[in-house]
Amino acid sequence: MRPSGRNLSEMRTISIETGVMRHAEGSCLIKVGDTHVLCSATIEEKAPPFLRGSGQGWVTAEYGMLPRATNTRMRREASSGKQGGRTVEIQRLIGRSLRAGVDRRALGERQITVDCDVIQADGGTRCAAITGGWVALRLAANKLLEAGLVTSDPLMDHVAAVSCGIYAGQPVLDLDYAEDSVAGTDGNFVMTGAGQLIEVQMSAEGATFSRSQMRELLDLAQDGIAALAAAQKAAL
Amino acid sequence: MRPSGRNLSEMRTISIETGVMRHAEGSCLIKVGDTHVLCSATIEEKAPPFLRGSGQGWVTAEYGMLPRATNTRMRREASSGKQGGRTVEIQRLIGRSLRAGVDRRALGERQITVDCDVIQADGGTRCAAITGGWVALRLAANKLLEAGLVTSDPLMDHVAAVSCGIYAGQPVLDLDYAEDSVAGTDGNFVMTGAGQLIEVQMSAEGATFSRSQMRELLDLAQDGIAALAAAQKAAL
Amino acid sequence: MRPSGRNLSEMRTISIETGVMRHAEGSCLIKVGDTHVLCSATIEEKAPPFLRGSGQGWVTAEYGMLPRATNTRMRREASSGKQGGRTVEIQRLIGRSLRAGVDRRALGERQITVDCDVIQADGGTRCAAITGGWVALRLAANKLLEAGLVTSDPLMDHVAAVSCGIYAGQPVLDLDYAEDSVAGTDGNFVMTGAGQLIEVQMSAEGATFSRSQMRELLDLAQDGIAALAAAQKAAL
Amino acid sequence: MRPSGRNLSEMRTISIETGVMRHAEGSCLIKVGDTHVLCSATIEEKAPPFLRGSGQGWVTAEYGMLPRATNTRMRREASSGKQGGRTVEIQRLIGRSLRAGVDRRALGERQITVDCDVIQADGGTRCAAITGGWVALRLAANKLLEAGLVTSDPLMDHVAAVSCGIYAGQPVLDLDYAEDSVAGTDGNFVMTGAGQLIEVQMSAEGATFSRSQMRELLDLAQDGIAALAAAQKAAL
Amino acid sequence: MRPSGRNLSEMRTISIETGVMRHAEGSCLIKVGDTHVLCSATIEEKAPPFLRGSGQGWVTAEYGMLPRATNTRMRREASSGKQGGRTVEIQRLIGRSLRAGVDRRALGERQITVDCDVIQADGGTRCAAITGGWVALRLAANKLLEAGLVTSDPLMDHVAAVSCGIYAGQPVLDLDYAEDSVAGTDGNFVMTGAGQLIEVQMSAEGATFSRSQMRELLDLAQDGIAALAAAQKAAL
Amino acid sequence: MRPSGRNLSEMRTISIETGVMRHAEGSCLIKVGDTHVLCSATIEEKAPPFLRGSGQGWVTAEYGMLPRATNTRMRREASSGKQGGRTVEIQRLIGRSLRAGVDRRALGERQITVDCDVIQADGGTRCAAITGGWVALRLAANKLLEAGLVTSDPLMDHVAAVSCGIYAGQPVLDLDYAEDSVAGTDGNFVMTGAGQLIEVQMSAEGATFSRSQMRELLDLAQDGIAALAAAQKAAL
Repeated sequence: MRPSGRNLSEMRTISIETGVMRHAEGSCLIKVGDTHVLCSATIEEKAPPFLRGSGQGWVTAEYGMLPRATNTRMRREASSGKQGGRTVEIQRLIGRSLRAGVDRRALGERQITVDCDVIQADGGTRCAAITGGWVALRLAANKLLEAGLVTSDPLMDHVAAVSCGIYAGQPVLDLDYAEDSVAGTDGNFVMTGAGQLIEVQMSAEGATFSRSQMRELLDLAQDGIAALAAAQKAAL
Repeated sequence: MRPSGRNLSEMRTISIETGVMRHAEGSCLIKVGDTHVLCSATIEEKAPPFLRGSGQGWVTAEYGMLPRATNTRMRREASSGKQGGRTVEIQRLIGRSLRAGVDRRALGERQITVDCDVIQADGGTRCAAITGGWVALRLAANKLLEAGLVTSDPLMDHVAAVSCGIYAGQPVLDLDYAEDSVAGTDGNFVMTGAGQLIEVQMSAEGATFSRSQMRELLDLAQDGIAALAAAQKAAL
Repeated sequence: MRPSGRNLSEMRTISIETGVMRHAEGSCLIKVGDTHVLCSATIEEKAPPFLRGSGQGWVTAEYGMLPRATNTRMRREASSGKQGGRTVEIQRLIGRSLRAGVDRRALGERQITVDCDVIQADGGTRCAAITGGWVALRLAANKLLEAGLVTSDPLMDHVAAVSCGIYAGQPVLDLDYAEDSVAGTDGNFVMTGAGQLIEVQMSAEGATFSRSQMRELLDLAQDGIAALAAAQKAAL
Repeated sequence: MRPSGRNLSEMRTISIETGVMRHAEGSCLIKVGDTHVLCSATIEEKAPPFLRGSGQGWVTAEYGMLPRATNTRMRREASSGKQGGRTVEIQRLIGRSLRAGVDRRALGERQITVDCDVIQADGGTRCAAITGGWVALRLAANKLLEAGLVTSDPLMDHVAAVSCGIYAGQPVLDLDYAEDSVAGTDGNFVMTGAGQLIEVQMSAEGATFSRSQMRELLDLAQDGIAALAAAQKAAL
Repeated sequence: MRPSGRNLSEMRTISIETGVMRHAEGSCLIKVGDTHVLCSATIEEKAPPFLRGSGQGWVTAEYGMLPRATNTRMRREASSGKQGGRTVEIQRLIGRSLRAGVDRRALGERQITVDCDVIQADGGTRCAAITGGWVALRLAANKLLEAGLVTSDPLMDHVAAVSCGIYAGQPVLDLDYAEDSVAGTDGNFVMTGAGQLIEVQMSAEGATFSRSQMRELLDLAQDGIAALAAAQKAAL
Repeated sequence: MRPSGRNLSEMRTISIETGVMRHAEGSCLIKVGDTHVLCSATIEEKAPPFLRGSGQGWVTAEYGMLPRATNTRMRREASSGKQGGRTVEIQRLIGRSLRAGVDRRALGERQITVDCDVIQADGGTRCAAITGGWVALRLAANKLLEAGLVTSDPLMDHVAAVSCGIYAGQPVLDLDYAEDSVAGTDGNFVMTGAGQLIEVQMSAEGATFSRSQMRELLDLAQDGIAALAAAQKAAL
């Protein structure tokens, strides 16, 4: 029934290759099916102004798409002079999600910037960015630990994200573009490795949804997150 | 226990005054406690380019805050040269939420723009904007019906929104600023008058949350939405 | 003869309600007929860079219009990415006018920003903004005096503004939009409560004007300013 | 008493050289003392959108300053990404002033853009720009007449501008920078060759002013305008 | 003598992998040592406005760098609101270079946009972008030929680019970042497969250079271009 | 054969008038035929941030064109909100070229900004800007020497620039607009008074070029530079 022939609760193939950007403190190329995202983490030994003197650090994220990551070429945001609303919304979500898994006091007064650049898009780019972004962040935190710059681990648990939605009346896991573009309801779920919730964002795109549908999507999401966290562990 | 002395499941006082902007096709001033938002709806007899020839219309929203709506003056976005990420995120949410209650085919090839400008802020501005924005939209749709420009009602049901969160370890309804700024988990819920879900946005601000906490917040939200829909009906 | 049925020298009804924005150091909603402007004053305990160490303070102003303040919705300046020429010109005028009534040495090294946001427009918005802006400024200055932050009053006299013009060949006071949009000559006059001149801005919109016409408009303006200053006094 | 040694009612030396930009339909270099402005007029055979089908034309103006026209280098506006408030205000004044002398129906559906670029500044640049801009406009209108593109003269009379102000307590004509920067009251006056008023802009910079002072400045301005109109005639 | 241990006339390892972006009409990942650039070509069946009706097409290019392509994270241009001077200069060079190898009449009234995004930088990114961009362009042109949309080949010859410079007093081929950052003279050379020159850009960074030094660099460049053209052939 | 009737190796008439902007530390108006550029140099007693504490200074350049310097009016860059790609490329070239002739240690920790504004354009504006910009820089350096602010001359030699190209199949010196707009190959050459090379920029605009053609253009350029350096000397 799904365009890809997958089962309703079947994730796409996940692949995470680390160390792909030699200058970054942490990096990976995450592929979730045909969605490919390059993630890098940059450590800066200075907290943003609003945290100076607080003893706490910050994690932030930026998101971009290569112009031809999509089927039709999109205008380059650098050339149009501003980041579109969708970009801004996504990078705020990535930043909030990653911060929820960080002990900012253990991090100390420094900032880690996670850049997520979509090389190829086939639905679920923000979820892949969070999942891959966490791997880059993990590698950067390892560098801090190895160098003795932090004494306890600033990362409290895995953070991963997956989308679910109601496609052709059925709850399905990990929507690709063919599904996402017609789904009646669409949700993004960010969780910890232990299954605690970090972000739930559900939208009625074509039809409103009920609490029981919401529960079904959450059930699917939990399974997906478990698979993603396993892939993160395998990659590290 | 709450700074305002309210019960955990108690909304702030709701007031909706219609017809406050004489040029607009629909308008209201909504007050939810000390959060005051001016909402207006503008009908344009032309659909946006991507809908030309489709027989369908569009509803979009814009959001702003007066510089001194808040305790500390914020820089005017018109003068800083761009809308901040928070503004962009909120106005996209308002637009999606209102569209979910619209029969875009019944609306026909025209666009309604809902402007929501926060005069005074005390938490929950985006929720007040959705609730008041729907009233402005309802009044504009009435004008279309009265003028015979549409033959069936383009609005399918009420749309209203409320925030809930976990404050001092307890689930509470309709957070004001004093609560919102320290809440561990924060959620915005948009629903129809019939209780169907349109948007669920929950974020772990300080601590992750569980599925049972999520259920409690949803229960609170449903009660809040019922009160808001009643206030909408009373105002019209 | 006038569209509103007013006499040539008749002002519209003036109403000034103070304390409408609870966060601001001073605020009012001024209504001059159907022109409604929200004014707030914000005190910042720091002078702008060019005055550091001078012992003098500064008063500045910003002006905006809600998109649907007018008959046709105007594009939101925050979204178009810059303030239009008209906005810039008006806010510079408001700032200069208010400063002319301020003893900047008595104010000390602090800045007061007056925000004027037009809720509804029917001609004369810049004049209403100056008149209402001065009330907000007066309230903020009172706070400084009460708190003992200044020892002598930084405001030297009332400041108010009114428009006059030549409509259908006749000099008229306080133009509304119906008059303003067709007036041959249009002028804005800012004066002190004592009748001294602060700003005179007269433009030939359709026909040039003579010195005797200019005198007639000034006579009208003086009467209008007296009425506005009385309304300011009554509101405080 | 004046820094330049001029009498109170003495203009600086005026020089207008025409034909200085070979590509423009009309051009001149106007020098009023050490204030030097290059003015050019460009004819475009298309009216702006709001005039299409109206049978009327438009005249507009743009103003700029070379970065080192002034004593201290100013940041180039093209590089800072926007025109400052002062620039916007001035170019709107130039456009309005020149239009007041134009029969827009005689001009027909075309637009003339007058560019005024300050090469060297010593006070009064906006007045020199209007006076020189009119000469460029006159030359462009001559081209239209010679080419038979218009059948009656679109220019109704000369347009010229001069500043006056109260310097050291005395009304003086044609302020240079040394005077302008300390003048208590400052005014710009735009008039026709016949002495009718087009724009009056007076500001209290340091002290408010009375109606009798205003009359004295107007008397001075009339004499100055007569001298400028004579210089325009001599140059053509 | 070279930091990498290469001979003076030795290129870095070249690798070109095609078909890496499934949505693009042509794409490749080019690696010249540690400089990695993703190149894609997008065909648009519409020429830019200035060519409408001319029977000719256009090739243009855009260039970007991921923020962490470099040793220190650079600010994302989409977020800073504009493309820097270096970016603009480089993308104009890429566009001009590729167009020099295109028969724009054979291409017909369509546009091909070549996007070059630097994934990892180690000197010579603009040269790698031209060399890889040509491969993407070649693949897109093949699609046009296969689809019968063009009847003769719009590409006339290979286009490739290499840098040379004077490092530690010696002419060297294909500078990496360690060399480039200290080279006295630096040049970029774009040539056809047949060895004709398209662009020569030489700059004295620290010391001026002589005509005989220029000849030596050109000799090196010709050898480099031959190696790059061979790699292009091998990849296709 | 040339539109102007000049010989293949004939420069246009060169004129350099110094001291034309009284506020600048150095200035000139350079005319190369009908190409007229105003150049000024501004000394700032502060090096840019990246040089603080280095003991070295900086020379930078900005370039602009009056809107009607060209045959068709170009949009004013200050009003369009950004400098175009061509402007950015040119001002970077001017800056690099002038710096190549400067002993930045002798200059000390200060910055000289050279502004080049094209009053009238007829081809070769960037070359005229470099040649005239150097004269302004020379005059500013003289001021530093006279004031004893520097002890040895920060300028090492003359810097001048000329264009050459292949017009109608023939190498020609100093292209005017009529030639430049149709030339097959176009080059800009920047050299010292002693004939050393600073910048070589050659582009195939319509046809690729050979090394022997490149040599011929360089020969022409050397003669042109000699004439320009002589004109610089004569002007000083």
